Amino acid sequence: MENVVGYLRERREEHLGWTRDLCRIPSISTRPEHKADVRRAVEFTHALCEQVGLKSRIMETAGHPLVYAEWLNAPGKPTFLVYGHVDVQPTGDLSLWDADPFDPVIKDGWLTCRGSSDDKGQVLMHVRSAAAWLAVEKKLPVNLKFLIEGEEEVGSPNLAPFVQEHAEMLKCDQVVISDTGMYDDGWPAVTVATRGLVYREVVITGPGHDLHSGSHGGAVANPANALSALIASFHDGERRVTIPGFYDDVVEQTAEQRTAMAELPFDEQQYMREQGSPKACGEKGYSTAERRSIRPTLDVNGMTSGFQGEGANTIIPAKASAKISMRLVANQDASRIGEAFAQAVRERCADTVRVEVVAHGNDVDAYLAPQGSKCMEAAKRALKESFQKEPVMLFEGGSLPILPMFKSVLGAESLLLGFASPRCNAHGPNETVNLGDLDTGTEAIARFLAYAAE
Amino acid sequence: MENVVGYLRERREEHLGWTRDLCRIPSISTRPEHKADVRRAVEFTHALCEQVGLKSRIMETAGHPLVYAEWLNAPGKPTFLVYGHVDVQPTGDLSLWDADPFDPVIKDGWLTCRGSSDDKGQVLMHVRSAAAWLAVEKKLPVNLKFLIEGEEEVGSPNLAPFVQEHAEMLKCDQVVISDTGMYDDGWPAVTVATRGLVYREVVITGPGHDLHSGSHGGAVANPANALSALIASFHDGERRVTIPGFYDDVVEQTAEQRTAMAELPFDEQQYMREQGSPKACGEKGYSTAERRSIRPTLDVNGMTSGFQGEGANTIIPAKASAKISMRLVANQDASRIGEAFAQAVRERCADTVRVEVVAHGNDVDAYLAPQGSKCMEAAKRALKESFQKEPVMLFEGGSLPILPMFKSVLGAESLLLGFASPRCNAHGPNETVNLGDLDTGTEAIARFLAYAAE
Repeated sequence: MENVVGYLRERREEHLGWTRDLCRIPSISTRPEHKADVRRAVEFTHALCEQVGLKSRIMETAGHPLVYAEWLNAPGKPTFLVYGHVDVQPTGDLSLWDADPFDPVIKDGWLTCRGSSDDKGQVLMHVRSAAAWLAVEKKLPVNLKFLIEGEEEVGSPNLAPFVQEHAEMLKCDQVVISDTGMYDDGWPAVTVATRGLVYREVVITGPGHDLHSGSHGGAVANPANALSALIASFHDGERRVTIPGFYDDVVEQTAEQRTAMAELPFDEQQYMREQGSPKACGEKGYSTAERRSIRPTLDVNGMTSGFQGEGANTIIPAKASAKISMRLVANQDASRIGEAFAQAVRERCADTVRVEVVAHGNDVDAYLAPQGSKCMEAAKRALKESFQKEPVMLFEGGSLPILPMFKSVLGAESLLLGFASPRCNAHGPNETVNLGDLDTGTEAIARFLAYAAE
Repeated sequence: MENVVGYLRERREEHLGWTRDLCRIPSISTRPEHKADVRRAVEFTHALCEQVGLKSRIMETAGHPLVYAEWLNAPGKPTFLVYGHVDVQPTGDLSLWDADPFDPVIKDGWLTCRGSSDDKGQVLMHVRSAAAWLAVEKKLPVNLKFLIEGEEEVGSPNLAPFVQEHAEMLKCDQVVISDTGMYDDGWPAVTVATRGLVYREVVITGPGHDLHSGSHGGAVANPANALSALIASFHDGERRVTIPGFYDDVVEQTAEQRTAMAELPFDEQQYMREQGSPKACGEKGYSTAERRSIRPTLDVNGMTSGFQGEGANTIIPAKASAKISMRLVANQDASRIGEAFAQAVRERCADTVRVEVVAHGNDVDAYLAPQGSKCMEAAKRALKESFQKEPVMLFEGGSLPILPMFKSVLGAESLLLGFASPRCNAHGPNETVNLGDLDTGTEAIARFLAYAAE
């Protein structure tokens, strides 16, 4: 083990060169004109996997290609599927960047460029770890499969079909993903949960066309007023969601878990200041940290009706609509919640207007990693040993559709071993990664493989 | 009297020629390129007033000019101020017109062209009436002043200052306006009330920028949800407006008046079908006809927040705003209602967001004509005699700022003697006027002058 870590430290500059080379490829998957660059990034990753001793191949999908690589010579040992992606977000406004987004800059211990953190930098940590094991020990402690795609930033449209089609090839005991964050610089974390997502649009139509609010105001139902009443009905006075059955299947976190969360340093006032909100707000009985992670919620994402220009226009609008999303937690069933929402809309909306509920995107279930699994314990041990700090169990507020997908298609749980800094600015200008955490994290991954094999 | 009516019938074709000539001038006041046309329409009206024996002059304002004409040789008799306008709305989509909007077409007893109904046709009814009196009797039964402006369709921005500046010149016992409608073709009406208007925009800001609804949803107040709750709070279960004091000054219509309104033919189901609304809706205890005329109301005119594009975008919007208007009835004070609204917004809006109330346009008070005045009785008598049908007392749902303006500046009540057909399509394509009603209405005006002088 110590030889493997020693090798990683020795070869640091060379390995970092891989990251810089991969980051130089502008593999923006959302832009058709960068299609060839995404393929170059996939080819680069494939070649690197081959170079370090994995058996790799490029596989086509209906969209961008992906890399599948494997090393399966540890009979009797568990098999891990490392998932990651080498496509990146667009750069956005170049004037907000201090340098060319695809010309990696190392300064004060940070590597800045698009993809450094999300997810090229983190994908190559696993390749580095494998490289070190194979170079030093000529073998890996476990069987490893790599599934590195090129279209995560466009929503992985071809991933689920690919996994379904190649379920046998991808069969594994555990999925391992490094595409999340640290608790703080130097302070490791395992993300143990993500929230689900149900996204709907409520469309209310009343009069057949905009009406003169003088001639008809008071006598004709106003869709915008009706929509407001409907939306208002979704929360009670304690800011609990009032959709029948909404909380029925919610897994309440243990007192221990809640205490651990409460003990983490968190300055609520500073958080509110950062968001630009005057005051904390949310479900009664839960802290701000809990409200945005372990509790389900309902938010309007957008709302539109009638006259929106400058000044005054006196109309009763013909139509009012709102995009409404619900973030879910384990074990809420996204489809059932979607149905309950639509049912509540139909029941509550005044019959003086017409209402329709439209689904946008796929319903995503929440994910909650099993506590105390052997794999989780190995990860905690490796992180603690490498970073010399107890890792935090993070509950992520966002949604990761691939986690319930891997679970349902491959029957495998996912371990989210993320190393991005809270200041990484993924998707934004000057995306960056903390090199100390990148290096220490790579050692932690190498250790994790050993401990998981014990 | 009968000689005057006889003269009107005899000269019908000639008089109709005046209307057609005036309608040929494309005096679209909203369009700078038609500025000269508005002046031509004013000049035409001025010349016609002179021709029929009134003393007329064109007077300048900061905008379009207007006509002031008078005949003041009936000492001891009341003085009426006839108000009207000779500017028109734009034509809109020409393909929706059956002919050139400014080439008057007479067919099946209707005169079709822009301005035929609103308001050129109605303005010239008063000129025709005066012409007949002066030709036949060499005098008018009352003193008449004409104030015919050229910018009503842009909101009469210079009218109030003009009236204030020339209050002495415009001094009168009664304002008479023909710019409203009949109850039906052949069925005359006097509009006895208009509603007031208070128009506000409520702007709620929460986070400083759009937030990721996964990372922050549940912990940060959502301006769109807060706005919905606020709007929902403005009505109770009986669809009464909940702003404190809202109904305090409302003049309840008498049982007699309500019975008269209820006895008018009105097919509620057909009305709802025409508006495209599935079902009647409004304040409990009042009919559909009452809700849109004699009751105050509150409507959202427009609403905007966050993501409004196709598909899904998971954000907590930084801002949500709504345009909200209130239609008022006598004797609600528009300014006080505006203040009470702002106060209610401030009190009810959650303190987890910021809220601002912006006024749009001037607050307009409702207008209610005094019942049983000598002038009103004369009008009813003249209408009944001319149309052989009892005139309806109409309560208009819309707002006419000039009525409270004339009342406050000149101290004069207004008589709304309107002859537009419910099918006139003012402001729309193929604007038209029923020639039978135009002719009979002109006779009614001539009779009204005589009866009012008795």
